[in-house]
Amino acid sequence: MSGRPPSECEWLAGVLTREIPLGAAMQLTIERLDERGIELSAPLAPNVNDKGTAFGGALVSLMILAGWSLPRLLLRRRNLDADLVIGRCEVRFAAPVDCALSVVCKWPDPAAVGEFIDRLRHSGRGKLELAPQVIAGGEVAAGLQARYAALARSQE
Amino acid sequence: MSGRPPSECEWLAGVLTREIPLGAAMQLTIERLDERGIELSAPLAPNVNDKGTAFGGALVSLMILAGWSLPRLLLRRRNLDADLVIGRCEVRFAAPVDCALSVVCKWPDPAAVGEFIDRLRHSGRGKLELAPQVIAGGEVAAGLQARYAALARSQE
Repeated sequence: MSGRPPSECEWLAGVLTREIPLGAAMQLTIERLDERGIELSAPLAPNVNDKGTAFGGALVSLMILAGWSLPRLLLRRRNLDADLVIGRCEVRFAAPVDCALSVVCKWPDPAAVGEFIDRLRHSGRGKLELAPQVIAGGEVAAGLQARYAALARSQE
Repeated sequence: MSGRPPSECEWLAGVLTREIPLGAAMQLTIERLDERGIELSAPLAPNVNDKGTAFGGALVSLMILAGWSLPRLLLRRRNLDADLVIGRCEVRFAAPVDCALSVVCKWPDPAAVGEFIDRLRHSGRGKLELAPQVIAGGEVAAGLQARYAALARSQE
């Protein structure tokens, strides 16, 4: 781990594996969280399919969580109280994965981050597009194009 | 269970929960398998997210498996030896799911099934589009549009 205080990474790992039990079932680990983005990994065994390669649902789950983690951290760093949900996504499976699962997601560019935060603050709803990818053997084995929406929690 | 010999359903349940361990982690059950299609279910607890609703990756996993089950059974009934993989899909999340997960998928129409089998037999590759849906409170809470490909196993 590098580049961020350990507490942020520990907090995120807790969300991904305790508040989301399927993350624990997948044996998800945060490999890297830095200024480039995030990398999540998981061993093949708990995520295997009938063909001995990674189950597509496990790949999608890991990509959804990698993409979700980045805006989740943007909100936390600004102390913004909002639910963050995935709205629509496209998945492309390019090649079978016969090794440990590895998913990377880059931070969105600063302009997109600025608009996401501004819209959330002013209209109660911000959107952000993210494109996590499964990397195996140095190649992109699957990709997700996903739109996440942050919805300000109503004050009760 | 109704409409099909128990052995087919038991065989499928074995694939979905023993050969694919994430199905067991999700506590997946085949609720129905008949001439209309398939219904898979899973309790909320192992599939929950940080907001107390169903994790999107769990919904996608259950939809992928429901869609995959139908062509898998078409192949088995014809004793065709082929791998069945998912190629590309679109997911739409319409509403949060705060109850047990239920996914339904209808059989494709007979013309599409005929073409799928014919192409697999003659060119070694058949494709089939399926559209499983998450149903919650009588409404569609999420939908998947997925293309599955059956790839004849080479004779070695």
